Amino acid sequence: MLAPKVQLLLTGNELMSGDIVDSNSAMIAQQLKDIGLELKRKVTVSDDLPLLVDEIQHISQQCDILIINGGLGPTIDDMTAEALAKAAKVTLTKHTDALEHLTAWCHYRKAELNQQNLKQTILPAGCNIVANRIGSAVGFSLTLNNCLVICTPGVPPELKIMMNEQIIPSLLDKVPNNIKTHVTRLQVFGIGESSIQKLIDEKMPDWPAEIELGFRASLPLMEVKLTTREASAKQLKKIWINKLKDLLGDHLFNIVQNKPITLSEYVVKMLQEKSLKITTAESCTGGLIASELTKVAGASAVFEAGFVTYSNKIKEKLINVSSTTLQEAGAVSEACVIEMANGALTQASADIAIAVSGIAGPDGGSADKPVGTVWIAWGSKNNLHSVGLQISGNRQYFQKSVATICIDLIRRYLINSIETPRYIADRKQ
Amino acid sequence: MLAPKVQLLLTGNELMSGDIVDSNSAMIAQQLKDIGLELKRKVTVSDDLPLLVDEIQHISQQCDILIINGGLGPTIDDMTAEALAKAAKVTLTKHTDALEHLTAWCHYRKAELNQQNLKQTILPAGCNIVANRIGSAVGFSLTLNNCLVICTPGVPPELKIMMNEQIIPSLLDKVPNNIKTHVTRLQVFGIGESSIQKLIDEKMPDWPAEIELGFRASLPLMEVKLTTREASAKQLKKIWINKLKDLLGDHLFNIVQNKPITLSEYVVKMLQEKSLKITTAESCTGGLIASELTKVAGASAVFEAGFVTYSNKIKEKLINVSSTTLQEAGAVSEACVIEMANGALTQASADIAIAVSGIAGPDGGSADKPVGTVWIAWGSKNNLHSVGLQISGNRQYFQKSVATICIDLIRRYLINSIETPRYIADRKQ
Repeated sequence: MLAPKVQLLLTGNELMSGDIVDSNSAMIAQQLKDIGLELKRKVTVSDDLPLLVDEIQHISQQCDILIINGGLGPTIDDMTAEALAKAAKVTLTKHTDALEHLTAWCHYRKAELNQQNLKQTILPAGCNIVANRIGSAVGFSLTLNNCLVICTPGVPPELKIMMNEQIIPSLLDKVPNNIKTHVTRLQVFGIGESSIQKLIDEKMPDWPAEIELGFRASLPLMEVKLTTREASAKQLKKIWINKLKDLLGDHLFNIVQNKPITLSEYVVKMLQEKSLKITTAESCTGGLIASELTKVAGASAVFEAGFVTYSNKIKEKLINVSSTTLQEAGAVSEACVIEMANGALTQASADIAIAVSGIAGPDGGSADKPVGTVWIAWGSKNNLHSVGLQISGNRQYFQKSVATICIDLIRRYLINSIETPRYIADRKQ
Repeated sequence: MLAPKVQLLLTGNELMSGDIVDSNSAMIAQQLKDIGLELKRKVTVSDDLPLLVDEIQHISQQCDILIINGGLGPTIDDMTAEALAKAAKVTLTKHTDALEHLTAWCHYRKAELNQQNLKQTILPAGCNIVANRIGSAVGFSLTLNNCLVICTPGVPPELKIMMNEQIIPSLLDKVPNNIKTHVTRLQVFGIGESSIQKLIDEKMPDWPAEIELGFRASLPLMEVKLTTREASAKQLKKIWINKLKDLLGDHLFNIVQNKPITLSEYVVKMLQEKSLKITTAESCTGGLIASELTKVAGASAVFEAGFVTYSNKIKEKLINVSSTTLQEAGAVSEACVIEMANGALTQASADIAIAVSGIAGPDGGSADKPVGTVWIAWGSKNNLHSVGLQISGNRQYFQKSVATICIDLIRRYLINSIETPRYIADRKQ
């Protein structure tokens, strides 16, 4: 059995005009890839019937599976059913399963079943329904030119559930065993792709050919992807994941079960488990660290107070930084961030603090302290650590990077990690 | 003269695998649309030479302009030049203009001109160079089957500048006068698309057919787009923009000149002009308002202190909210946010404050104050305003919406606007 050839056809004027960015095809590609199927080509067209019919006929002759996305809605622009019927030279007919679905959907939503919606039950004769658990439009499939054509909704959450629950399982038995894949994702922060690759090359010269190593930047974090074919033993991957755990050490913070987590989610959960409270004293990040932490539901159990102390005067007044320090070492200094952390710990009666002061730019740099200079202090009373970094990039990149690094430093503190990584920066000292 | 047919061909394994989402084609489509050219079809393929050659030959027979994006880099995966040469049946040769560009680029970057980079100067014989002001790879164009094929870099900032400065101007004389368009964008916040459409239908029944009205959500903001053909008088649009200014009132905050601005940029600039200082007292937004304001370069001139007061205890301690208010009205109340604003004004010695307290969810709601309830106070000492809103959506949507509304309320305060809009919310009272 050979791997089936899969292509994608997307339809939508809003896709062609650039009014929306297409994220559906990346999602479909990821899901296909996870079961070993590779997309080599996709075509996107505006809502134009002759164009659609032509593409369906053409592509269905070139491949084994064609996934069409979009054009299932109730409006006049939505013409996927009509195009597929024309391409397959079948009639459009009322589909009882689709009608049943739509009736139940309207009932559940206490909505009236109107004429517009009814259009969504008129489908190519002979097609099979693909259930849509959350939306009004069912998907449907039909075989044309020996190609399985599957029509899916353009609404991203509907598509995602349909792919996960219906389409991917139905495609599994079309994937030959020797290309079927199983993917494990490791989330890491504090080490780059090329450094990991180098480490593995050096320390693991016997890396097994059965485990394909890949990387995926989901900025600012990174995922290491381990892909195995189903034929090869799961046991082998388990062994090598354990070896990787040792190799990556504290850079590794999560092995993805259902979905990836953020560093903030990790930190808030750990603080909850340890019954610790955290406080923030931010200058250059201007509240971004507090904001990232409080994006996590349940943050209120571990976070009571955050200080955005942008000016020197406020650093003195709110969190007791001494004027001597500000005059002699300056606001962007090791001494200042340590005093900021201490002051915030006292004012907030918190267990752990993170304090940061730096020059986000574009102005404010000097020869001594150029734009991108940042000092960070973290820890608890009598156990404060600090680091100075030099980060390049524009203001928003600087702020985002520094906030992420700060949250990672808290994570490492909570797991009693010893070494501070280089991150993407040059160390100040 | 007919409008030229334009198609797009994108290449990249990372596009097909779903590892990155393609935002380039939306950008290209927008820029083409602004001069009256419409994309009807685009094809995306992996980095596969025979596939690329085949697509180039096929598409060049179907249209007048083919823009190819991606595959100009120095690595073995980058094969656009080779594919175009094969498709056009010409040789690949060293291109002196490209070599000159690359030499200058390396000199400027103090980088060595290595063998890998030199690949970027080997181009199809007879092609013309398209300058790349910021990257190492020049673009190039060639006419094939009467179709102008333009090859562009996949790196988004490089592509953007190349489109803006080179490609769009060069295409202008290929656009017939009767379809040439001129677009003006109005940035609005506080009123929805359907409300604007309804207002115009009601109040402007004589809206001229020569001005096409469009909307573009750039969440959380919105843009109203007015498109005219070059033939029609600019004067007419000026008149109707002035009428729209009156109709939209304080919802309109910017007529885009070069690029859109954010509400925070608008507010920071106004505060600078008026020499006013602002402070923030945030509960449910957890630092997001401070973070949005300090994203703007120069924010330090107008922002010194922000308070993230997540717990009741901290609201009392840091910004003097009375325990009586917290006990009787609760933390999510009009009384509380007014005290928060007053306390922050005093502590920060600021001129203007914004204070917010609400229930972001998913937990913490009650029958009386369900998830989504939020109270906001803003203004100066002795001139504080307040509003209670009910906002639906998940935690992050709630936080983002509330922060944007808060910044908009400051904007309206600074321009002495009288009415508070409904926003996307239900008013509490």
